[in-house]
Amino acid sequence: MTYCVGLKLNAGLVLLSDTRTNAGLDNIACYRKMFFFENPAERVIAIMTAGSLSVTQTTLARLDEAIENELADETTSILKAPTMLQVATIIGDTLSRTRREIADQCRDLRQQASASMIVAGQRAGGDMRMFLIYPEGNFIEATEDTPFLQIGEHKYGKPILDRVVTPATSLADAQKAVLLSMDSTLRSNLSVGMPLDLAVIEKDACAVSARRRILEGDSDFMDMSAAWSAALRDSFVKVSI
Amino acid sequence: MTYCVGLKLNAGLVLLSDTRTNAGLDNIACYRKMFFFENPAERVIAIMTAGSLSVTQTTLARLDEAIENELADETTSILKAPTMLQVATIIGDTLSRTRREIADQCRDLRQQASASMIVAGQRAGGDMRMFLIYPEGNFIEATEDTPFLQIGEHKYGKPILDRVVTPATSLADAQKAVLLSMDSTLRSNLSVGMPLDLAVIEKDACAVSARRRILEGDSDFMDMSAAWSAALRDSFVKVSI
Repeated sequence: MTYCVGLKLNAGLVLLSDTRTNAGLDNIACYRKMFFFENPAERVIAIMTAGSLSVTQTTLARLDEAIENELADETTSILKAPTMLQVATIIGDTLSRTRREIADQCRDLRQQASASMIVAGQRAGGDMRMFLIYPEGNFIEATEDTPFLQIGEHKYGKPILDRVVTPATSLADAQKAVLLSMDSTLRSNLSVGMPLDLAVIEKDACAVSARRRILEGDSDFMDMSAAWSAALRDSFVKVSI
Repeated sequence: MTYCVGLKLNAGLVLLSDTRTNAGLDNIACYRKMFFFENPAERVIAIMTAGSLSVTQTTLARLDEAIENELADETTSILKAPTMLQVATIIGDTLSRTRREIADQCRDLRQQASASMIVAGQRAGGDMRMFLIYPEGNFIEATEDTPFLQIGEHKYGKPILDRVVTPATSLADAQKAVLLSMDSTLRSNLSVGMPLDLAVIEKDACAVSARRRILEGDSDFMDMSAAWSAALRDSFVKVSI
């Protein structure tokens, strides 16, 4: 499985993904699940992926091919699409078509082949937007009421987001929130694993403002995780019933 | 859905279940999911249920019928079975048979009919034991390494249990831990709902030591929930990355 989470805040977008990919429990590998398509200062698009690696890789390769195609226009290239809505539509259509083709190929094996994506970004002159794209190609969008979207193993890390994230959350607090959400998930589910990819896209920058790969044993992350565990245990002692 | 959790500690057993039952989102009802079979001072057996209500109710009715049958013997009545292992086997066999029959009846509708159970208890002279019984009738048992078992919507409430519960946890702390685990689940998943049933079975009592129904709006539970939220937010502010 996978855990990816994206926050759309007044101050910008904060994205975090793990890298564990597995086929069964005895075939575990590390693959990046966060990708950027940038034309700095004009547009930035981030994609995070969950699900069948063959579906997500092929979808991304097709999005790349469409961008590089000399005949690409605003209906096929996500770097030429006039709005983030149109970007989400192109990605949704590409994902849906790829998923159907691979599911057809896998039919005899009775294997599932599905995938979902979080697409976040901004065009100069447009608003920041963030979408969760379903395997069928349709999508939902993050709003003021629900400023975060998750794909993959989303349940373990949801309570902390429900409690602390609002659109007014600062980018610093937002990074802490997604890392704590990931920490709970890593502790409770083996199918989500280090290293992690963390990215921040500040509002109106139309470029990736910061990105960081957090490796297994990263001392900052381990310190945060230990401090959070200690704080939770302290809180547990203090709360009475 | 459902959330039920049981802890097997050195000091005793602590059990908590919700009561929400739904068929789709527009048909929501309240049903007890925690049941006791007691012969005080000789044996106590607690069963918590998750899954299709028709499967769990019929399974429990058949266990009752077997107890009341004049011809009942130690292979059919859970109040006569000589060990908790044999109790779990009778319950597993009854659940498995009931589930198969109802699944056959539902086949034309392409509806799932499945259920799982947590069975916990003790016989005088035996050890406390706690089992998770799968829909197929097989089961696993709580151990020193993993002193808790969960059924239903288990993911939201697992991180807190992973962090604070060990076999040495006191019965008071254990009740707090399961209530906080439930609190996280209630906040993040609509299919789990109040009221709650909480029970404690002290070691070697061979009887239910305490049971309590926690109603919607219970002031102790609301205070604990609010204090926990506040403590989490305080901890969040203190932890740095």
